Parts: sequence; C-alpha cells; structure tokens
Amino acid sequence: MIRGLDWIAADWGTTNLRVWAMGRGDAVLARAESAAGMASLTPAGFEPALLALVGAWLGAVGVPVPVVACGMVGARQGWAEAPYAAVPALPLAPGRTVRPRVADARLAVHILPGLRQDRPADVMRGEETQIAGFLAGQPDFDGVLCLPGTHTKWAHVSAGEVVSFQTFMTGEMFALLSRQSVLRHGVADTGWDAHAFAHGVDQTLARPERLAAYLFSIRAEGLIAGLAPAAARSQLSGLLIGAELAAARPYWLGRSVVVIGGGAGAKAYVTALSAQGVTPGLAGVEEMTLAGLTMARLGLQRGLA
Amino acid sequence: MIRGLDWIAADWGTTNLRVWAMGRGDAVLARAESAAGMASLTPAGFEPALLALVGAWLGAVGVPVPVVACGMVGARQGWAEAPYAAVPALPLAPGRTVRPRVADARLAVHILPGLRQDRPADVMRGEETQIAGFLAGQPDFDGVLCLPGTHTKWAHVSAGEVVSFQTFMTGEMFALLSRQSVLRHGVADTGWDAHAFAHGVDQTLARPERLAAYLFSIRAEGLIAGLAPAAARSQLSGLLIGAELAAARPYWLGRSVVVIGGGAGAKAYVTALSAQGVTPGLAGVEEMTLAGLTMARLGLQRGLA
Repeated sequence: MIRGLDWIAADWGTTNLRVWAMGRGDAVLARAESAAGMASLTPAGFEPALLALVGAWLGAVGVPVPVVACGMVGARQGWAEAPYAAVPALPLAPGRTVRPRVADARLAVHILPGLRQDRPADVMRGEETQIAGFLAGQPDFDGVLCLPGTHTKWAHVSAGEVVSFQTFMTGEMFALLSRQSVLRHGVADTGWDAHAFAHGVDQTLARPERLAAYLFSIRAEGLIAGLAPAAARSQLSGLLIGAELAAARPYWLGRSVVVIGGGAGAKAYVTALSAQGVTPGLAGVEEMTLAGLTMARLGLQRGLA
Repeated sequence: MIRGLDWIAADWGTTNLRVWAMGRGDAVLARAESAAGMASLTPAGFEPALLALVGAWLGAVGVPVPVVACGMVGARQGWAEAPYAAVPALPLAPGRTVRPRVADARLAVHILPGLRQDRPADVMRGEETQIAGFLAGQPDFDGVLCLPGTHTKWAHVSAGEVVSFQTFMTGEMFALLSRQSVLRHGVADTGWDAHAFAHGVDQTLARPERLAAYLFSIRAEGLIAGLAPAAARSQLSGLLIGAELAAARPYWLGRSVVVIGGGAGAKAYVTALSAQGVTPGLAGVEEMTLAGLTMARLGLQRGLA
C-alpha cells in the first residue's frame, strides 16, 4: 500500500503496460511496467494484468482509486472499446472515456479514446494523450508534433485541437526489413554511422519513388562493395526516414516542429529534420504521457464535481 | 535410370531446387523439384540434395552426366561461388562457369555465374539465365525485360547484352507487410479486387513519396471504413507495384517491355503496365529458364569440343 496514493496513470500499448502511482496532482510516488500489452491479453486478462502491477499499491477499500489509461487498451480488441473521436478535435475530452467492468472494488478504471481522421483514413490511440500533455505546457502552440515509433505520427495542432494527422509505418518497416528480409544478412543489430544515415536520408528525400530500389542496393553494396553492417543499418534507417520526410513535407516545411520521443529513434528524426533546415524542439515521451493523463484526471474530477 | 538422358538442367534458388532430365538438345524427359534451396543447405548438403532428385535418373558410370545449374547455388553461401560478371555483359558466357567437387563420379556439375552492376550496386543470380533463354528466341530484342519475384528485376537488353538492371524488393515487402506487419489483421491471404489494385497503383504512381503513409491507410480504412480483406490485399499489391513502376519509369517508358513470369504476380505487372499504355509481352519462367540452360549446355559443348 502506498501512502498518499490519489490515482494511477496507465499507458497501455500493444506490447507493454506502464503504470505510475500518483499523489495529488502530478507527483509520481512509484512506477512499474510489464510486457502485458494489449496484444498478449484476452478481455478477461486485463484486470489481472493491471492488478499484478498495482495490487500492492492499493489498501483496503475506502473509495475506489481512479485508474486513467490511454493506448491500445481502448481498441476493439482491447479491454473495452473507447470509440475514436473524429478530427478536428481536442486531443482529450473526458466525456468520451469508457469504464470497463472490474471485479476488484478498489479500482475505478477510465479508458481514454483515440482519434480518427476520415479522409485520408487514419487512427491513433495513445499519442493523443502525449499531445494533450504537450499542450498542457504550451496551450498556444501552433505547429506540428512528430511522434516517432513503430507507427510514427505527424499531427498538425492549432488552437488546442488536432487538425489533421498522418501515420507512417517507418518503424515497423525498419524492424521487418532489418531482421526478417534479405537485408538481415548485411545489417547489424546495433551501431551507428552518421554519414551513412545522412546519405540514406538524402537519397530518398531527393528521389522518394526509388525507395524499393535503394533498399536492395544495401544488399548489393554489402555483396560487391563491402558496405559495413553498422553503416548498412544506418543507411536503411536513413532511407526509410528520408522517404517519410518526403511524404510528410507538408507537415514540417515552414512550420514549428516538436519531436516527442526519446532514444535513438527520436534523435534520428531530429538529425534528419535539422539537415533540412528545420530545428525541431524535443519533448520526452514519459513526461508528455504523464502530463496528458494528469490533464485527463483533472477533467474527470471536474466532470465528477 | 532414364534412357536417352543427355544432360540435366537445374534451377537452384534460395528456397527451391528444380531439375529437368534432358535428352539431346532441349527435349524434356522428366522433371522433379524439392524444397532443398540454397538457404537450407550447408556446403556438404548440395550433392546429396541433388542426388535425392536425380539419382534415379543416372545409370552406371559411363561418362559423367553434365548438370548445368543456375541461381543462388553459385552464391558465396552456396555450393561453389561463381563470381559475378559485370554489366554490360552477355547474360551467359560458358568460360565463367565453376565446377564444384563431387563425390559421385556420375555427375559433372557446372554452375553459371550471376551478373553484377557496380553503380548503382546491384546483383542477380538466375535471372540472367532466363534473359539468355529469352534472347535465344529473340536475339535482336532491344528493350526491357521485367522479371517479377521476391526481388523483381528490370533489365535493359540491347545487342545481346544486359546493359543495366535494377532490383526492387517489392515481392518481399508484400510478403512481410501482408503476413507480419500490423496490416496482417486486415489483409486476406487470397482473393483479388481489380478495382482496389488499380486504385493502389494509381495512388503511388502519382505520389510515390507517400507510400509509407498509404500503407498505414490500409489499416485505418479497415478499422473505420470497412475495407474488405481481399480489397486490402489487392490495394497493398497495387501500392507496392505502383511505387516500383514510378521508380522504374526510365526502364519501361517508351520501350518494348516483356514480362518473364507466371501466375498472379506476373499478371499484376502486366495489368499495371497496360494501364500506363505499355502493352508488355509475356514469356514463361520455366520455358525461359530451360532455354537459357540449354544455351549454356550448348556453349559448354562447344567449349569442350
């Protein structure tokens, strides 16, 4: 049991569950995570997976502790479907949360909905909460947020709303091509070559339609020109990000851009954008997620008041 | 034992081995195949894998039976490395074949080399034999051959030589995306929707740089617009082939084009090219492979005479 526990924040994605024990407001008292992502659970498995992480935080029943969750937990295949809100829309609106049934009376779970765009068709679940967290700190931001990941999102934000967004499968393509395609023979698991990355970005930004040919050239250069595995990895990343930047040009050209992310993935986007004369800001994923969940918690409190 | 066996033709790729018992010239007496592709074999495994298919065709030792083989069997990880010839080059030249050691005195194995291109870096192994087979029937052909497959090749052929070529990972990307990415949830294993295919081709031919975004739209349209799984499959194929056609435009625009292939894959390329006002010819893979191996056999005979 954690003294001062006021609510629990949960970022529940396809492959992971992350939870934070929160005091009043945005004070983090404890954190925990597991691999109990949405994709590994049946509907009956969500409550046990949550209790496995937060059960020890809860005391005897007084009033139920609110759990505010974002991400794929709200998908059709998740715990309870939280229908998408259509853009343009505020990234969060507490009236749209759903409440799955729970057996443990100490829990009051609220699942936040994602956003959808009808034309061109697109969806997000989880990133809207990071966007809300970013806007909590910069409510007047007018520009573009780039959220790198398995499915990278670009979102145009104005007047507190998400106006439009676009998803790219860049991260998933990198994983598939580097580990499961013929390129795996010549692409290292780790290592970085800044020059090879920049070269890859330049190639597809200039000639994006040649992506599928440039990809095979990584294999051919490994065979006949001695391309090193770490350089091959960096070139593959550069080719995919360059192609994405070419397609996302209407998003970033001449706009204020902030990358929400951490680690090597976010750094790659910052590097590639900087080479195009855009100097993006950088905000942390965990901070933005927690800020967004905190905003949702406050909204729920107001709605309940 | 097969009466009249003169030589054995072998198409030995990454995942399959196909062999034909040949009489004098190009008469096919028998055929066999197995899954003993290069990728599944250690160097010591090639001769047993070959004998498993052709052992019954061979009689007692008189003179060894020539086996003429093309494909990945000649790769560095294959039975014996047959170094690439650099383009521009004749697709076949018997003086470049290699002879792996064999334990069974009834076999005389000849492995044909592939082709390489230094700038842009590219390689082929096996397709050069199909090209040679095509040129055996049309020696004056001046134009472009398209060879769809896991790694589709476009080759510019003139004066009997391969002048340049370009490989696209389209087939492998289709397999990875349709079976292993997030798209698998909404993409059928079979089925065809001609309209969805044409729409996909049009999208990426017009805006090839948007490929990575159009790909995710298949998922999003499945979730929020009810895109049917067979239509999703066709649209995915169309998007990838359209992007390839955009990049390969210098190859096919205003040229004589012949597609060497069979089945749904070749038909998709023919359909997509026809919609662009190119009416490609169509030649069968097995026929072209056998014709090419027969040309190599004749060349070896002359070299031996």
